[in-house]
This record gives sequence, C-alpha cells and structure tokens, in this order.
Amino acid sequence: MTAPTASTAPAGPPLAFSMPLLVRFGDCDPVGIAYFPRYFDWMHRAMEAWFDEALGLSYAALLQTHGLPTVETSCRYAAPCRFGDAVRVELRLGRLGRSSLGLRTQIIGEDGVLRATSRTEVVMVDTRPGPGWMRPTPLPDTLRAKMTPYLDPALA
Amino acid sequence: MTAPTASTAPAGPPLAFSMPLLVRFGDCDPVGIAYFPRYFDWMHRAMEAWFDEALGLSYAALLQTHGLPTVETSCRYAAPCRFGDAVRVELRLGRLGRSSLGLRTQIIGEDGVLRATSRTEVVMVDTRPGPGWMRPTPLPDTLRAKMTPYLDPALA
Amino acid sequence: MTAPTASTAPAGPPLAFSMPLLVRFGDCDPVGIAYFPRYFDWMHRAMEAWFDEALGLSYAALLQTHGLPTVETSCRYAAPCRFGDAVRVELRLGRLGRSSLGLRTQIIGEDGVLRATSRTEVVMVDTRPGPGWMRPTPLPDTLRAKMTPYLDPALA
Amino acid sequence: MTAPTASTAPAGPPLAFSMPLLVRFGDCDPVGIAYFPRYFDWMHRAMEAWFDEALGLSYAALLQTHGLPTVETSCRYAAPCRFGDAVRVELRLGRLGRSSLGLRTQIIGEDGVLRATSRTEVVMVDTRPGPGWMRPTPLPDTLRAKMTPYLDPALA
Repeated sequence: MTAPTASTAPAGPPLAFSMPLLVRFGDCDPVGIAYFPRYFDWMHRAMEAWFDEALGLSYAALLQTHGLPTVETSCRYAAPCRFGDAVRVELRLGRLGRSSLGLRTQIIGEDGVLRATSRTEVVMVDTRPGPGWMRPTPLPDTLRAKMTPYLDPALA
Repeated sequence: MTAPTASTAPAGPPLAFSMPLLVRFGDCDPVGIAYFPRYFDWMHRAMEAWFDEALGLSYAALLQTHGLPTVETSCRYAAPCRFGDAVRVELRLGRLGRSSLGLRTQIIGEDGVLRATSRTEVVMVDTRPGPGWMRPTPLPDTLRAKMTPYLDPALA
Repeated sequence: MTAPTASTAPAGPPLAFSMPLLVRFGDCDPVGIAYFPRYFDWMHRAMEAWFDEALGLSYAALLQTHGLPTVETSCRYAAPCRFGDAVRVELRLGRLGRSSLGLRTQIIGEDGVLRATSRTEVVMVDTRPGPGWMRPTPLPDTLRAKMTPYLDPALA
Repeated sequence: MTAPTASTAPAGPPLAFSMPLLVRFGDCDPVGIAYFPRYFDWMHRAMEAWFDEALGLSYAALLQTHGLPTVETSCRYAAPCRFGDAVRVELRLGRLGRSSLGLRTQIIGEDGVLRATSRTEVVMVDTRPGPGWMRPTPLPDTLRAKMTPYLDPALA
C-alpha cells in the first residue's frame, strides 16, 4: 500500500521556483497596468519553466502524451503590475495528490511588494487518442519525487 | 442614512445578462480546448457588454474617468470549451457594495452543459490624474439602480 | 485540363464578407488603442466566420482534417482603433489558387473611416497524421465554388 | 541643414539585437504551432528589450511621453514554430528616418532554421495631451546615435 502523497519528508525547508518577468507593453491595458487575465498566462509559463528547468522533464515533451488542464484557479490582486515593472513569479506546491497538483503562486515586484497571490489546481490527464482521453492518470513516481521538495504544507 | 446596497427589492426574479460566444481557433491551445486564461477575458467582455447593452452606460465612456480593476477572481472549469463550440457567458451579481461588485458568471454550452463558473470582485476607482488616482469611489446611484435587478442573494 | 482558378465568372460584382466587432478593453494597450497584433487575430476570426456563415463549412469541422496556416501576412494601419470603437472587418479574395487563398481585409469604423488594410496568404494543408502532414492539398471544388463570388481581380 | 539619417558610418559591420524565446503552451494553437499573430507580439517584445538592453533607454520610460505605433508590418512564415521550440528573435534596422524606423526581424530556431522574417515600420509620436497628440516627432539625436550601429543598408 502506498500513500497518495509523498511519504518521505523533504530534507530541508520547502523550495520555491522563481521565474523573472518584465511587464511588457502588450501585457497592459488602457489604464497602463497588466490586464488581469495575463497573470494566469504568466503563472502557466512559470509552471512550464518549472518542469523544464527544475523537474528535468520538458513540459512540451510531457504534453505529447499527457495534459495538465486547470480544474480551478483563483487570483487575488494585491497591487497593480505596471508597464515596465520587473517582477518574479514564485511557484510552490500546497498539495501533491495522486494525479493532481495544488500550485501556489506569488507575483512579487523587484521592490519586494506582493502583486498577486494565486491558487491553481491542475490534474494530469492522458491525451492519447482512445477511451482514456482526458482521463486523470497518476503522476509518475520519478516526477513526484522531483516535485516533493516544492511542497509546503503551510500552503495547503 | 442610506444602506450600502440597494434597499428596494427587485420587482421580479433576478435577471441574468447573456453574451453569446463562439470558441475560435485563436482561443484554443494545442489540446484543442480553450486556454484557461481566455475565460477571464471572455468574462470581462461580458461585463463590458452588460454595461453597454443592459446598464445604458458605455463601458468605454465610463473608463475615461473611472476604472473597474479586478481585486479577486476565481474560475472552476467544469467541462472543456472545445474549438468551434457555441457557448453563452451568463452574468449575475452576488454582491452589490458601495463601490464594489461581486460578479457571478457561468459559461454554458448550446448543449446546456455548464463549462465554467466564476466569481469576480471588481471595485470602481477614480482614474483621473490626482491624489485620488486608483482610489475606490462610490458607484453612482443611477448605475446602482440599473444593476440591482441582476443581484441574486442566493449567489452571495 | 482544368485552370487553377475558377473558370466561371461570378454573376455579379464581387461579394465582401463583413464581421462586426467592438474594440474591447482587453484588445487595447496603454495608449488606449488596439494593440497592433490584435488585428491579425480579428482578421482570422473574420475568416472563420466567413467559413461558418458564408461558405457553409464549419471552420472547426474543416480543421479536424485540414489546416489553413498563414504563409505571409501584412497590415497597413491607417487610423487607430480606439477602445470602444465599433468597426467591421471586411473580407474579400484577391487570389484563389489551387490550394491557397489571397485574403484581402479591411477594418472600417462605423464612421466609415478606414482603420487598416491587410493582405494574407493562407494555404490549405493536410493535418492528418502521416507523410502528408502539413503538405498543401487542393481546395475542394465545392468550397472553391462557394469562394469564387468573393474573388475581386482588382485586389490581386 | 541636417540629413534625415545618421551621417557617420558605423565603425564595423551592422549589429543585430537578439532576444531568446521559448515557444510556450499559451502561444500555440490547436495544430500545435505558434498562432501567427503571436509573432507580432514577440517582435514587439524584442523591440522593447532592444530599447532596455541595447539603447540604454527604458521603453516604459519613453512611453510616458511618446509612442512608437506601428504604421505597417508584414511577416513571412518560413517554417512553423512548434510548442517547446527554443528560438531567438533577431532585430536589425533597414531604415532610420527622421521620426520613423524600419525594423527588420528574423525568428530563427536553435537548429539554425529560419522560422519567420518580418518588416515593420514604426513612427515616434508625442502622446502628451495637447494638439500634438499622436503627431510624429523627431527621434532624439542621442537615441539615433545608439540606433545607428543596427542599421544595415542591405535590408532597406
């Protein structure tokens, strides 16, 4: 019998994956601040970069057979991201399920000011043609092991 | 003294504003379904159409002096919107504050199947240059009166 | 032997397909005008609507087996599209090849002022898995017949 | 009398500004390749990075008083950018006018394969409120001097 979540405690404090980002002209609305749906694209890009750079599995390679559709997402906008701002998107895990992930993301300015905080639930599905199309599928153990250090139970 | 929300009960059942939408090629991702951040843009477009068509106040005219930034938003994705799907975005109010609105939105397919449900809190701010820039400002009474029929306390 | 383009002259003057459009908040940049790449998405949406509404072939259905990738496109921006503007996207054909199309598009304001004019070359390709993937494939005769009335040799 | 373009020949061969880019999930369409309007956003981002990193003038700072609207743009798509591809956006100048720029951009894969080539004409305008709003204004000499090394007459 195996527990649905990682049974071995991480060796140190939870890790965060950080992706730097410049708020560009095309991200911004007539008020001169980033249009709020853009944050969700930024957070997805951070997740892709986390796979590529931290988990050792190219997100594009994964997507040849699997998908990670978003089941639920939310974002609290604490302070506007202005055109020209340098920010970082910080990603942690609040939950690591059998086939799903609870991503916890913060967008933080170079000035240290929190701009936004978000919770996103994604589920791994099979996208190969057939009866299992878009059905949840367990996260591979090797992937789960790489993800575990990013799990912070305080963010559950 | 006036209550912060409309004191006169609407004459009939709460109204919903509905905006039809076709899921276009450019809305969709490599899996062939609408990319999840797109839903937030659709819901903002529905809010703009609600102002233009139902509230009798052009959203673009309003934005010359005011803004309606999103303070918080969430979306639950119940079923994918596929490329080519005809859907409608239905907007109601779950809350009508002094200067803020709680929008409740559903995306529903032509087949009647719920695709997504969302809650979004926006606040009216002053965007005229000066000390009040981006500060909350009360919703005008005429606008509030037009919004009241869309308030459904069951969605609070 | 058949000519690569429609041999029967259209009965009347060339047709134009027109799609109405409102310039929304999310289309616009910090200057308050539509961000220039948005026009290309609008023009693609007009092409999709042309298939759906005028050619009697759902673009989404077509895309299950075929694609219409853009080979080349250009746009001249004559006057800005401002946030809140009502415009129409007018589509004509300047060329109707064996497997390719020369789309000619204009964006025109409700005020009659030309906002943009564009030329786009697309080619029909096969997207079914196999050796023909992304290879040009002839336009079906029934589709070509429906397209011919939109061909305006003056726009070649 | 002053010539409209830089009179001093650059000391060496023309420079190119290069911006690396990963083709992300949200850039791609149901065919699994980058949606063609995205290229125009990428090229604008490269121009912004060129200002920030090579010309020593923050694009966001410039935009507080000026704009660089696109007057005309075109793109030839030589090979598709696939989801997951690492590419670079290379920017050069084909023309350096009194108040306008002829940008010449290439998108090239890590494999060295040309994906797209583009020509874009932008003009510097004044965006300060007043009678000169959106009127062309000369490029400052200091900016022109920084741009001159990127001018390649072969790309006129």
